[in-house]
Amino acid sequence: MEELEGNGASSVSSNEIGEKIWVGSHSVRKDISYIGEIGTVGSGYEIAKLKKHIGEKLGLNVERKACVVGLGKLGTAILQNEKLFSNNFKIVAGFDSSINKIETLVTHIPVYPAYDLADIIRKQGIELAVITVPGHASRDIIDRLVEGGIRGIVNFSSVPLHATYKEKVYVSNFDIAGEFRFLSALFTMEQQHHG
Amino acid sequence: MEELEGNGASSVSSNEIGEKIWVGSHSVRKDISYIGEIGTVGSGYEIAKLKKHIGEKLGLNVERKACVVGLGKLGTAILQNEKLFSNNFKIVAGFDSSINKIETLVTHIPVYPAYDLADIIRKQGIELAVITVPGHASRDIIDRLVEGGIRGIVNFSSVPLHATYKEKVYVSNFDIAGEFRFLSALFTMEQQHHG
Repeated sequence: MEELEGNGASSVSSNEIGEKIWVGSHSVRKDISYIGEIGTVGSGYEIAKLKKHIGEKLGLNVERKACVVGLGKLGTAILQNEKLFSNNFKIVAGFDSSINKIETLVTHIPVYPAYDLADIIRKQGIELAVITVPGHASRDIIDRLVEGGIRGIVNFSSVPLHATYKEKVYVSNFDIAGEFRFLSALFTMEQQHHG
Repeated sequence: MEELEGNGASSVSSNEIGEKIWVGSHSVRKDISYIGEIGTVGSGYEIAKLKKHIGEKLGLNVERKACVVGLGKLGTAILQNEKLFSNNFKIVAGFDSSINKIETLVTHIPVYPAYDLADIIRKQGIELAVITVPGHASRDIIDRLVEGGIRGIVNFSSVPLHATYKEKVYVSNFDIAGEFRFLSALFTMEQQHHG
């Protein structure tokens, strides 16, 4: 919708939305109707109003605290890269199991030893975490995150997390090697199909 | 399957596979039948054979070259973090539009100015790229990647890429803020549902 607003539009039709996100206009209208009465202007929805309604319904207008667990190169880059995050997400803490790393890392975001995880998450009301710890450590870390009351995890460790945690926390797994495998499989099958 | 092998198993049933990936055993058997005759041992598939067959069919046993475009903190972390990649993917080059960065970055992987992108990708046969450039620069970078013949892109820029490139290259979009929004929406809806 930022894209449409950038083009100077103030309203949008279900057809236009459908084309952007590759679904039929009927589904778009049905989904929008779930979030309640929003009204239409001419043949479309008022963009500002639609954004506000969707944002409220999905809790996107609330500022949420996040942390990074595992301060190797990738974790440190994420901790310090503020551009990665929109205004509604604020990284307030970093964690690592190495005390030496905690003591030597130069960053304006506070960093703590991993054994303080549950405690600090609970006290600061942190809801989201990015974890970049090695695969073998990820289950232990997630146990502590869940203990502290974390609600969502972006998992960069190479071990995907599903079932064990699915009723306590939402996890989004991301593994670059896994994405490479997936993309390679796609273009390999395309080659086989065409040649 | 590495997980099953780690447990000392040498064969696996379609039921077991289905439970791991959350699909029915019937779908698993159907999908496996597409990759050709593989045979069964007792009530299951021989794991080593299944891995080899799937790997060959999907081109996963081939070593592929990859590059990183955009050498800010995140890009540099990905360039240098070899643990992120399995043996079959080798990062052979980094690119940045800042000549100053190219000249000062200390890394054992060769780095080049972004204007050499298409040329180096073509000459070295690089098939995969990770891009961490700012959103506004991503389309230009992808044009050059496509010109060089890249086949797959993992996109960390905040601008998701779909339609324009979908017939030339496969793109996997990843945006941490976007994942945070998605996870927040999930747990917000759960709260509304239960409260």
